[in-house]
This record gives sequence, structure tokens and C-alpha cells, in this order.
Amino acid sequence: MEKRIALFPGSFDPFTRGHYDIVMRGLKLFDEVIVAIGYNSKKQNRYFPIEHMLQSIESCFEGEARVRVITYSELTAGLAQRIGARYLLRGLRNTTDFEYENSVSQVNRHLYPDLETVFLITSPAYAAISSTIIREVHKYGGDVSEFLPYTLE
Amino acid sequence: MEKRIALFPGSFDPFTRGHYDIVMRGLKLFDEVIVAIGYNSKKQNRYFPIEHMLQSIESCFEGEARVRVITYSELTAGLAQRIGARYLLRGLRNTTDFEYENSVSQVNRHLYPDLETVFLITSPAYAAISSTIIREVHKYGGDVSEFLPYTLE
Amino acid sequence: MEKRIALFPGSFDPFTRGHYDIVMRGLKLFDEVIVAIGYNSKKQNRYFPIEHMLQSIESCFEGEARVRVITYSELTAGLAQRIGARYLLRGLRNTTDFEYENSVSQVNRHLYPDLETVFLITSPAYAAISSTIIREVHKYGGDVSEFLPYTLE
Amino acid sequence: MEKRIALFPGSFDPFTRGHYDIVMRGLKLFDEVIVAIGYNSKKQNRYFPIEHMLQSIESCFEGEARVRVITYSELTAGLAQRIGARYLLRGLRNTTDFEYENSVSQVNRHLYPDLETVFLITSPAYAAISSTIIREVHKYGGDVSEFLPYTLE
Amino acid sequence: MEKRIALFPGSFDPFTRGHYDIVMRGLKLFDEVIVAIGYNSKKQNRYFPIEHMLQSIESCFEGEARVRVITYSELTAGLAQRIGARYLLRGLRNTTDFEYENSVSQVNRHLYPDLETVFLITSPAYAAISSTIIREVHKYGGDVSEFLPYTLE
Amino acid sequence: MEKRIALFPGSFDPFTRGHYDIVMRGLKLFDEVIVAIGYNSKKQNRYFPIEHMLQSIESCFEGEARVRVITYSELTAGLAQRIGARYLLRGLRNTTDFEYENSVSQVNRHLYPDLETVFLITSPAYAAISSTIIREVHKYGGDVSEFLPYTLE
Repeated sequence: MEKRIALFPGSFDPFTRGHYDIVMRGLKLFDEVIVAIGYNSKKQNRYFPIEHMLQSIESCFEGEARVRVITYSELTAGLAQRIGARYLLRGLRNTTDFEYENSVSQVNRHLYPDLETVFLITSPAYAAISSTIIREVHKYGGDVSEFLPYTLE
Repeated sequence: MEKRIALFPGSFDPFTRGHYDIVMRGLKLFDEVIVAIGYNSKKQNRYFPIEHMLQSIESCFEGEARVRVITYSELTAGLAQRIGARYLLRGLRNTTDFEYENSVSQVNRHLYPDLETVFLITSPAYAAISSTIIREVHKYGGDVSEFLPYTLE
Repeated sequence: MEKRIALFPGSFDPFTRGHYDIVMRGLKLFDEVIVAIGYNSKKQNRYFPIEHMLQSIESCFEGEARVRVITYSELTAGLAQRIGARYLLRGLRNTTDFEYENSVSQVNRHLYPDLETVFLITSPAYAAISSTIIREVHKYGGDVSEFLPYTLE
Repeated sequence: MEKRIALFPGSFDPFTRGHYDIVMRGLKLFDEVIVAIGYNSKKQNRYFPIEHMLQSIESCFEGEARVRVITYSELTAGLAQRIGARYLLRGLRNTTDFEYENSVSQVNRHLYPDLETVFLITSPAYAAISSTIIREVHKYGGDVSEFLPYTLE
Repeated sequence: MEKRIALFPGSFDPFTRGHYDIVMRGLKLFDEVIVAIGYNSKKQNRYFPIEHMLQSIESCFEGEARVRVITYSELTAGLAQRIGARYLLRGLRNTTDFEYENSVSQVNRHLYPDLETVFLITSPAYAAISSTIIREVHKYGGDVSEFLPYTLE
Repeated sequence: MEKRIALFPGSFDPFTRGHYDIVMRGLKLFDEVIVAIGYNSKKQNRYFPIEHMLQSIESCFEGEARVRVITYSELTAGLAQRIGARYLLRGLRNTTDFEYENSVSQVNRHLYPDLETVFLITSPAYAAISSTIIREVHKYGGDVSEFLPYTLE
């Protein structure tokens, strides 16, 4: 059977323990998981700079040859096709996520019919952590270290 | 019985096959369906220009005398009252839509007690298509023609 | 335009003020609304006897020639086709209702392609009232008269 | 038993009858309810000015010594700890609220383990009213006075 | 201020760690929490016998004078009124729970206007545990001891 | 890498085109998919007899050596462990499914920590089809052949 490559796309602003959990569990399913940090080349509106996030995520998977981290600024379905990923890996935390992911996955399948989106339900311990909430806490000086699988400097 | 006029309001940025499906099904219920493109006169933050969208939607219903397309920049309930529409026509795609539409319809009924909001559930083939996703795909050069009931030039 | 006949199907065990609200609002949309009490000929597991409920519902619409009340024990889509109803009228109270009605309406459209299911969102004052809860309250001797648009004897 | 102080945080842009309902019902549970208007010191993007809203809310609870109104610009959990509030009071209107509040409450408990978030379900008569919809209606000159427990001048 | 007595009603078939968590957190809010095991006198369809469950729950709160355990077979709102409980305590695990509890709490308020239902969101570690799933696992001989705050003999 | 065996458990009363879609898409992820028809040895309350369903499902995958069909009457997690399946494959149709599957998957992970539940979102064309609705339609003599990937005799 051909190598199973999964793309794990997101803005990862920041990458959380919830995301880390999905990648680790994805490694039980796929031969390779590519974490792809999407950014919009036009508006520079990230909270955590992309270069810094790239390094932070790489540091999480240092010993793990089957994880690669990249950045991209194109359609996710197009990126998947270009790099030979036949699977998108996504975490589901709750019903709001479900409705959104349901729409996105149907559109992705339309754009690239061979692309299969595979969902894992986020572990309960991490399901409450969203990047949005972490940014909010960090902005006001709260300690977010327990939500992140790496150290912010 | 008096003429049943329904207003189908939205930002339609862009108008999708899902919207088209709702209008066509609405024609089985109402004598006239008025597609009303809402815009905010102050901020010019549409992705697809309003004049262009007006023409595109009109081109979809060229042979259909019972559909009219207008633009507006006022309260939807006020517009309905002004043009004699006693019904708002809305599509429901999922539970996120439901919760939002539930709130809006109660407030509209408060503003104009005779106004009845009528819901059709979007056909499954179109339920994944949201204007937001189409803009995202289009921005990155993806082909969105299959999601639209007219040709973008 | 042909007469617009809507079927309002349900087990109505019992028929509630929420149901009554949907019928009255449906009369603004349709020329005739047929309240159809579904029952299962094999299992006699209703709480409120069907003959009694038929009379109770009829008493609610005594002056209203555009409402008819019937009982049925067949597929709803088949009944609609047989009596010339092109519309199903349904109330939506919450997201649980939405997910269920979404499935049922797609299947009904499959069984009878001309059948259109039209949804009204139950008025907030009645959205909490379900037949199930009324049966539960009644079973323990609680007063349910405020939830019903007729008098139980 | 020590005094039970609950914090009722929000942006309250504007404070609605739904919020008022939650405070009044909260007074049956807590010895003191502190309405805390959160604002972001950096971006001045409120629709209703904060000083004006502070006065409006205060005017609602003039005779009620157990309600205090404050403004804040810090983490909610930090504020609670600083002022000795062991409870957060929150209203739930629908499932979208639930999913959001679920996340926020877990994070708050992480930041301040003794903090308990207590939920009341918004009364149906007010559940449709969101601050967002009120701003939208007000922006277009619609009458919002029935949604507010004070008079806007 | 008068004594705050909360009723925590349920079928508790069986009482789980999730229920235990709600009672313990409820003790921070109320002066007394009464765990009330509802049963239907007519149908004897419990999986775990009620006398046994009564003892099991009592054993969980042996040192805690502010918790009482009772059984009942009447309307919850009526029981609350009879024993002087002005609050119902309920846990929310997910959106399905929310929609159900929303309905029940409105009806309870109708039956007994002074009754306030107070919700806590179940801790994530316990949110997956439902009595239904525990019965299913137990029926097939699976080990459920980690889901229960007492020992089944 | 070891052989990836996925269990696709369900009552399959009946097995639908939606189920068939999930198995076929699962074959792109797993080396083997085992369709496991769960039944309760004590109550014989299936609508479609289990032997008949076993044959019907087998007939769908006749040419496909990587699909096996079995029946079972034990804990799903126990079955998975016994037959060496490290993955459960599940379809998600809507938010009601999501909440239920979320609970079940957490409990399964508790019973068998190495077990990973993998979700695919049911294709929109099949998402409305539930076994419950098919039974209902079939009971009243409606044609269900389009919902099934095999012929009922």
C-alpha cells in the first residue's frame, strides 16, 4: 500500500496541547503527518509570529521523523494535492466545530475528490483549549504555559 | 387572498446555488419572491461588488417574472413593511444557522409583528456551500463556478 | 394559482399550544391546513386516546373552515400525495428538533419529490412545551391546562 | 458561611433585559452580584460608550444594595480572585452559547481553581435578544427600547 | 438570609462520578443538597435497584451532613415545594443535555414559579459518563468501577 | 508497520448506503475493515433478522477481500481487543450523532486505552438516511430500495 500522508492544516495561532494530541494520535493512523501553518500573505494579523510558531511546533516533534512542519498560503486542497497528501487530519472539540468542519470537508472534497478528511475527537482534557482563548489570556498576561506543548519565550 | 410577497434578504457575497435553491422552492409557496441584497452604506467591505452581484442574481431569474432583485441599506423588518412583504424567506443549513435565525426571527417579529419568517432546509447537495467558504476559495484562485448559479467574469 | 394545502402531521399526544401556534401561523401561508394525527394501528400505546384528541383539536378550530383534522396510519408522504397536499408544515423548537426534521424532510422529499417541508420556529413562549413533558406532568397529577388550547375533561 | 459574591462579567454593549433577568435571578443565589463591564484598553471599539453603559446599568439597580457595577480591563479570573468573588454568573441562551461558555469556564477554572461558574438559562422571553442584534437594529434607527431595562438618551 | 436548599433530582440508574462532582460543587453554592432518586411506582424498570442505589449514594456522603438522599415518585416541582427547596441543581454535559434541560426548567418554573434551576457544566473528565452507557457496559460484564464513586457489590 | 484493522460496529438494522459509504472510504485508511453487527442475545427486538442482514452486507462486499462481516454480542471495546482491531470506524451525520459518539468514544478509550475511534463525516447525499427512518418507511410499505446497497427480498 502506498505511503499514507496526512495534512494537519490550521492557523495554529498558537499550536496547543489539543493540536499536539491530535498529531500524536494521527501518527497511529498515518505514515506521515504534515503540520501546515496557514497564513494570509496580505494581512499580517497573527498574534504569534509565524516563524516563531514554526520553530515551536518543530521543537515538539524533534525526535519524530514522521512529522514535518511547513507554512503555506494557498488553498488547503491544492496544497494537499501538490504534496501528495490524500488525507486531511482534523480535531473535533464540540458541535460548533462539527458544523464548520462539515462544510469545509464537503468543499474540499469538491475541490479535490480524492481527499478524505479524517476526524478525531479532541481528548476531554484539551477540548476546552482554543487558540482564541489562549490569545485572550496571554494578552492580559495570564499564564498559558499549561496549554502549550512547548515553552514560549 | 392577498398576494403573498416574500422577502429573501441576505448579503449574498456571493449568491450561491444554495440561495438559488431556496428562491426556486420559495416560488412554490409565494406569489412573489424579492431577493434583497443588504449592504452597509458606511463600510465598503464586500468582496463581490454589489452592482455586479445584483446583475448576476438578475441573470439567474431572467425568465421568472415572480422574482425581483433589489439592494437595501436599512432594517430588514422596515424594508419588508415598506414594500408590503409579509414573509421573510430563509434557508437553514445546520444547527449554527438555526440558533442565529431563531434570534433574528424573534427580533424581527418584535419590530414588525405581522412579519412571519418561513424556513426551508437547504438541500443536502448545497448545504456545505457558504458564502464565506466561497470567498476563501476564490481569494486563493480556486474554481468556484460549480457553487454559483451564474458565471463570474 | 392552485389551492395551497399543507399537512401538519404529528402524534399530538397531546396537541399543545405550541402546535396550535404553528397551525394559526400556517394559515397565513396556506389556503388550508390539515392536522393529521398519526397512529400506529398495531401498538395501542398512546397516552391520550386518539378519538378524544381528534375532538379536542377540532374544538380548537371550530370557527375556522380552513382547518381540518384527520387521523392516519400510513406514510406521511403517501398521505400527502393521496390528499393533494404539496406542503408539510412543521414547527422547530430547538437544535434537537432541527437535526431530526432535517433527516425526515430529506426522506420525505425522496418518497414524494413534489413535497416541500415548510418550517416555522415555535414562538419562545411555547418552545419549552413538548408532548412528552406534558404527559409526564399529567401522569403525576400536575396541572397541564395552561399548555393546552382546549380543556381536558 | 462566608459571603457569596458572584461576578457577572460581559462587554454589555449594551446591557439587555436578558442580562437584567440573570442578575435578578442571581440575587436569589448570591449575597452580592458584581456586574463587571469588560473593555479592551487598546482598541476603542465599543458601540455604546462604557461610561454611559456604567451609568445605565447602575440606574437599573439603584435600590438594590446587593448589586455593584464596575469596569475592568484584565483577565476575568484575575479580577474575581482580586475582589474575592468565588462565583462567575453566566446566562445561557442556546447551544452556541453553551459550547462557548463550556470552553471559557474550563479555562477559568484552570486559571483560578476555586472559581465556580454558575449558569442560569435565559428566560424564553429574552433569549432572542443579543447585544449584537440590538446594535444592528439601533444602527439603522430601529426602536430598541423594549430590549433594554433603562432608557437610552 | 434563609437556608438555601437545592434539590438534585435524577433517576441515578446509576449515580456516577459525574453526579458526585455536581453535588460536591453544589455544596459550595447551597447550604444543603438533597439528592432525590426519582422512580416510577408503576413500572419497575430500573437496572440498579433503588434501595441499593439509595445506600450507595448515602455511603458517598457519609461525613457530609449537608447532603441528604431521598427517593420520590411525584412531580419534581411538587417535591421541591413540599420540602422547601427553592433551587434545582442540574449538570450539563453537552448540547443534547442543554436542549432537554432548557425545556424541563421552563416547565418547572411554570409549575412552581419560585423554583430556580441552577446549572453547572460537568467537569470534562466526567462529561462522557452517562448512566445509559454505564448500564450498557455493566450488562456485558465490563468494569465500571472507575465511573462510580462507590463500590458495587 | 503492523496491519491496520478497523472495526465498524453497529446494529445495522438495516445497513444503509450511508454505512456502505463509510466502509468504502474506510478502506482508503485501513488495511481491513470488519463490519460487526451487534445484537443483544436476550431481547430479540430487531426489525431485520440478523442472519439476513449478515448475508446482505456480505453480498455488498463480495469482491472486496479486505472487508469481513461478523456478528457479536459483547462489549465493542472487548471485541476490538480480542480480534486485534486498534481502530473503531464511525460515521458522523449531524450534531446529535456527534454528542453521542463523543461520549461512547471516551468510554471505549477508558475500557481499552489503545483503541482509537476514527470519524468520517457521512456524505451529504446519505446523511439523512437513518436506520430508524428506513424501518419506519418499510413498516408502512414504502419503497426503501434506494437507501440500501443491496436488494431486500
